Amino acid sequence: MQNFVFHIPTKVIFGRGTVSSIGPETAAWGSRCLLVHGRASSRRSGLLDRVSASLSDAGVEVFEHGGVRSNPVLSHVREGITLARQHRVEVIVAVGGGSVIDEAKAISAGSLVEHDVWKFFTGRRSIRKTLPLTTVLTLAAAGSEMNSGMVITNEETREKFGTGNQLLYPRTSILDPELTFTVPPDYTAYGAVDAVAHVLEFYMTSRDPDTPVQDRIMEGLIENAMEACDRCLADPCDYGGRAALMWTATLALNGLTAAGLGRVGFPMHMIEHSLSALYDVPHGAGLSAIIPGWLTWHSRRAPARVAGLCRRLFPFPDMERCSERELAARAITILRNWFGRINSPASLQELDIPAADIPKIARNAMALARVWRLGEYTPGIIEEILALCR
Amino acid sequence: MQNFVFHIPTKVIFGRGTVSSIGPETAAWGSRCLLVHGRASSRRSGLLDRVSASLSDAGVEVFEHGGVRSNPVLSHVREGITLARQHRVEVIVAVGGGSVIDEAKAISAGSLVEHDVWKFFTGRRSIRKTLPLTTVLTLAAAGSEMNSGMVITNEETREKFGTGNQLLYPRTSILDPELTFTVPPDYTAYGAVDAVAHVLEFYMTSRDPDTPVQDRIMEGLIENAMEACDRCLADPCDYGGRAALMWTATLALNGLTAAGLGRVGFPMHMIEHSLSALYDVPHGAGLSAIIPGWLTWHSRRAPARVAGLCRRLFPFPDMERCSERELAARAITILRNWFGRINSPASLQELDIPAADIPKIARNAMALARVWRLGEYTPGIIEEILALCR
Repeated sequence: MQNFVFHIPTKVIFGRGTVSSIGPETAAWGSRCLLVHGRASSRRSGLLDRVSASLSDAGVEVFEHGGVRSNPVLSHVREGITLARQHRVEVIVAVGGGSVIDEAKAISAGSLVEHDVWKFFTGRRSIRKTLPLTTVLTLAAAGSEMNSGMVITNEETREKFGTGNQLLYPRTSILDPELTFTVPPDYTAYGAVDAVAHVLEFYMTSRDPDTPVQDRIMEGLIENAMEACDRCLADPCDYGGRAALMWTATLALNGLTAAGLGRVGFPMHMIEHSLSALYDVPHGAGLSAIIPGWLTWHSRRAPARVAGLCRRLFPFPDMERCSERELAARAITILRNWFGRINSPASLQELDIPAADIPKIARNAMALARVWRLGEYTPGIIEEILALCR
Repeated sequence: MQNFVFHIPTKVIFGRGTVSSIGPETAAWGSRCLLVHGRASSRRSGLLDRVSASLSDAGVEVFEHGGVRSNPVLSHVREGITLARQHRVEVIVAVGGGSVIDEAKAISAGSLVEHDVWKFFTGRRSIRKTLPLTTVLTLAAAGSEMNSGMVITNEETREKFGTGNQLLYPRTSILDPELTFTVPPDYTAYGAVDAVAHVLEFYMTSRDPDTPVQDRIMEGLIENAMEACDRCLADPCDYGGRAALMWTATLALNGLTAAGLGRVGFPMHMIEHSLSALYDVPHGAGLSAIIPGWLTWHSRRAPARVAGLCRRLFPFPDMERCSERELAARAITILRNWFGRINSPASLQELDIPAADIPKIARNAMALARVWRLGEYTPGIIEEILALCR
């Protein structure tokens, strides 16, 4: 196990009927808030009204900044910063999924500095203070509700960069699984894939072979993401399934799995961010298209880790007679079949991305790696991986 | 899954060479500290000197309060409170295991009130403020380094009471596995048993049948406590084993496993506290003497949960042909055999406690339950359980 610091200041309030806590939780930090939200769905469902009412009841004045897109863009972040300054807000409230929360984080950091917020993403400036942030989560996927990272896309430069800072943890996040009953099947599946991918990134890129505490937690989270997703697709209003998927997705990227693994990479996300940027593919769909090929590449170099996944997650009677390569291949097949079952693409073909584009995707992924970590990957390795994603 | 609030403000600094962080981490909270520690071992090993030097280098003046016993006693807590007031300390530093940290918590709460600290334990007063606490952990067992509970024994009334409060979380805890290289085999084993017991309490007393995220985490922690203990006994200086045992014991009682289970009990600890109080048995030894009988009692009423433990932790080829009762019995046998292997008693007989004492132990356990939870247990049930611990 490698040395680590583990410190999650976020307070999670989880369960049915918890949305009404947003008022008091926010009022603890200020009396003027910027309410950041997405497109129509939280307005339509009445959630936004409930949040606004709770904030007003707690004596918090609300200024709205709606219209956050998935893959949130820099220009909209800048508009939010302008609003936050104009109304002298003291706290930010995010109502939405990872995109809304990421944009709210960027606004919370950008509102307190003279320079442009993008400098935080290019690494030219460091975050030294932020406005406090509270959140109401509406999608089980990204994990932003309990972590210190954010990803924003600069439309002008076509760069999708991420950064992290201890000050970006939300102060309170409200996780009510019932809010996700209306998430459609495709985005339910993509969210589960995102959680699986977050765990797999660290599981596969850790170079410390002696992390059994973290390994068992990670394997449990993958199993739960898959089983909970199946339950939610079978019955969108299965509370237990939605709750398991939500808590799993949160734990999958809150630092618990990575603590002790040492310097882990995030290479699959780098490659996927290129797919999203170049082909406007939903993040989870891009991830599931890459995972089988990426695991195949890893298992050709060192099958033990992927074989271990098979032994732990997909045991079968005669497995001790199989070679590690056979076990690894079996794990990949099971994951690929699961993607098929939940209707998430399992190859670049299924996304209609031609093989001829592979060098272009690899170049783009390398450019993204300026800030996010690609580990040992070179452009040649990325091309090899993408070739296996066909 | 039941509603929950999850909020652990403690910053954990984990790994080799981290003791030198205690100075700066403590200086963030004040410039005069009470250094609470145990008997001779941390002085003999030189740890206390390293901690004092780090504190002095960071500009923190040190006042010592040594001599904390295992099962820390109220009179010594009161002495610590007197010292803390006399020297107007602003922060408490604990160097030791769970007993030292628990006493430091009691001092941190008791120093700021006019009334006697015992009133917090009897429930007659609530904790409203505490002095900040930092810790250096020297034993993987209790989990106090990352939780909000404390247990103190009142020698006059022979009561061993526990209480909890969000303000009792240490601000920073330093976990260096190398500090546990010198822990002797018996206390290494008792620590692992304590971690297993903490997980089992919640695993068995949860009444929500749909908590798969928590179940997989709990099963992983039990597996890790057992395997890591075996490694530490085989080689006391196996860093990976010590690290796995330390992080497992911390996660076993920091709130992660219980979040979402609803109102869980702590009945096995209640019964064990009686054994400790009446026969001066080490806590871990008392727990391992009770676990097999306690699980047997549970599996006679509802074998599914204990059978699930067997399927998950101790799978074997033909298990699907076995009944739940058979699987439960097998899990209990495997645990009993493990206790034998690590030299921790697996029955009351091995502690030389006569059957005639069972009613007395049951009465004592019920008295303890005034503050700690016994769940559904009656004196009759406790006697039934103890009869199965023979």
